Amino acid sequence: MIFGMHPVMEAIMAGREFDKILIQKNLKGNQLGELLTLTNKYSIPIQYVPPEKLRGITGKNHQGIIAFLSSVEFASLDNVINTAYSKGESPLLLVLDRVTDVRNFGAIVRTAECAGVHAIIIPSRGGAALNADAMKTSAGALNVVPICREPNLKNTIQYLKDSGIAIVGLTEKTNESLYSGDYIGPLAFLLGSEENGISPEYLKKCDYLASIPMKGTIGSLNVSVSAAIALYEALRQRG
Amino acid sequence: MIFGMHPVMEAIMAGREFDKILIQKNLKGNQLGELLTLTNKYSIPIQYVPPEKLRGITGKNHQGIIAFLSSVEFASLDNVINTAYSKGESPLLLVLDRVTDVRNFGAIVRTAECAGVHAIIIPSRGGAALNADAMKTSAGALNVVPICREPNLKNTIQYLKDSGIAIVGLTEKTNESLYSGDYIGPLAFLLGSEENGISPEYLKKCDYLASIPMKGTIGSLNVSVSAAIALYEALRQRG
Repeated sequence: MIFGMHPVMEAIMAGREFDKILIQKNLKGNQLGELLTLTNKYSIPIQYVPPEKLRGITGKNHQGIIAFLSSVEFASLDNVINTAYSKGESPLLLVLDRVTDVRNFGAIVRTAECAGVHAIIIPSRGGAALNADAMKTSAGALNVVPICREPNLKNTIQYLKDSGIAIVGLTEKTNESLYSGDYIGPLAFLLGSEENGISPEYLKKCDYLASIPMKGTIGSLNVSVSAAIALYEALRQRG
Repeated sequence: MIFGMHPVMEAIMAGREFDKILIQKNLKGNQLGELLTLTNKYSIPIQYVPPEKLRGITGKNHQGIIAFLSSVEFASLDNVINTAYSKGESPLLLVLDRVTDVRNFGAIVRTAECAGVHAIIIPSRGGAALNADAMKTSAGALNVVPICREPNLKNTIQYLKDSGIAIVGLTEKTNESLYSGDYIGPLAFLLGSEENGISPEYLKKCDYLASIPMKGTIGSLNVSVSAAIALYEALRQRG
């Protein structure tokens, strides 16, 4: 945790990674614009909170700014893809849209590590907090699997497609079974939250939609279970 | 919740299902033997606790006995198997050995319902509590999937084998991949807990051992994820 305008700006410029930065509502001051330019440039999530909230976090002189450092080192998507290709491997990625539940996120990271995914792509805003609970549920995998935090998932999805990576949306909104797809080539599975599913604008950009067969009456799998079933089907096909 | 010697015995004889019965340590009285004969006959889990524990649960006159009714209706394994065969279906079962974590248990039940398993078999003692948390994590599936609570898993495994059902142990203690097995015939997947795995005496009775391929360095999947991957591989093969 870092607080105060100067220390936080210095940490950003030093290249530290942040979980989020809390800024007091209606904060005044010349340097606020400078800070916001930096948070925007480095896609650091910010959140405006009332003074009581900041006071509850620290009794020290926070000057209206408290930053939470990320315990996760983020990876460059470019590097991840290039490394996979240069090893002669077919990239296997996960893109998580609006998966905000920390335990589900941690569970996905754990399974993804076991399935050997090259990276998990999350949005800069609106994803799960990369906190101690996420780390615990991931069984430590959050320290091992490359996590790419991207400011604009729509652009990232386009970038993946341009890099020869097929986008496979896991959704109930298709009659195509997961088991009729071919997952040997470079691909990214795109998953949405249990409540909201995949955003329609991302769904449209998918190369292929796949649904997991359902036998019962409840008809809804946990998102971390869906991720596991899809990743392991890819692993099975890849042999 | 029911308390007092007479009401509890009456409820047992009326065929009610119990999560467990708490009995005060060193309880005396003629009827205790009678109660224990009943709990033994109906395989109801009992637990001996100090008086403070009972006082903490109710201020009423519990006479040293507090029983928790089960919100789950248990199914007869016999019926489950006969029904599956009579419909021309190939039984698909889960046997859970020492899976005590309530959330993992609930998650397994949810996935099992979606995968159309015919029943989940749990031991009378040493399983997860079938409580509100389990119900919630199961997304209500605990009310839908037949749960068979069996007093002796070793006998139950033998009974399954005698009924033509192959026992497939999911374990890291084999080089056989999950994906080289054939899961079209009648089968029960046997899973142990993440900490303890499958009990050695049950492992010996398995017809086939299967391990889920691991790519990463952590090498350990959550038990509910393992169950999902195995069940969906059976589903894929069954088509």
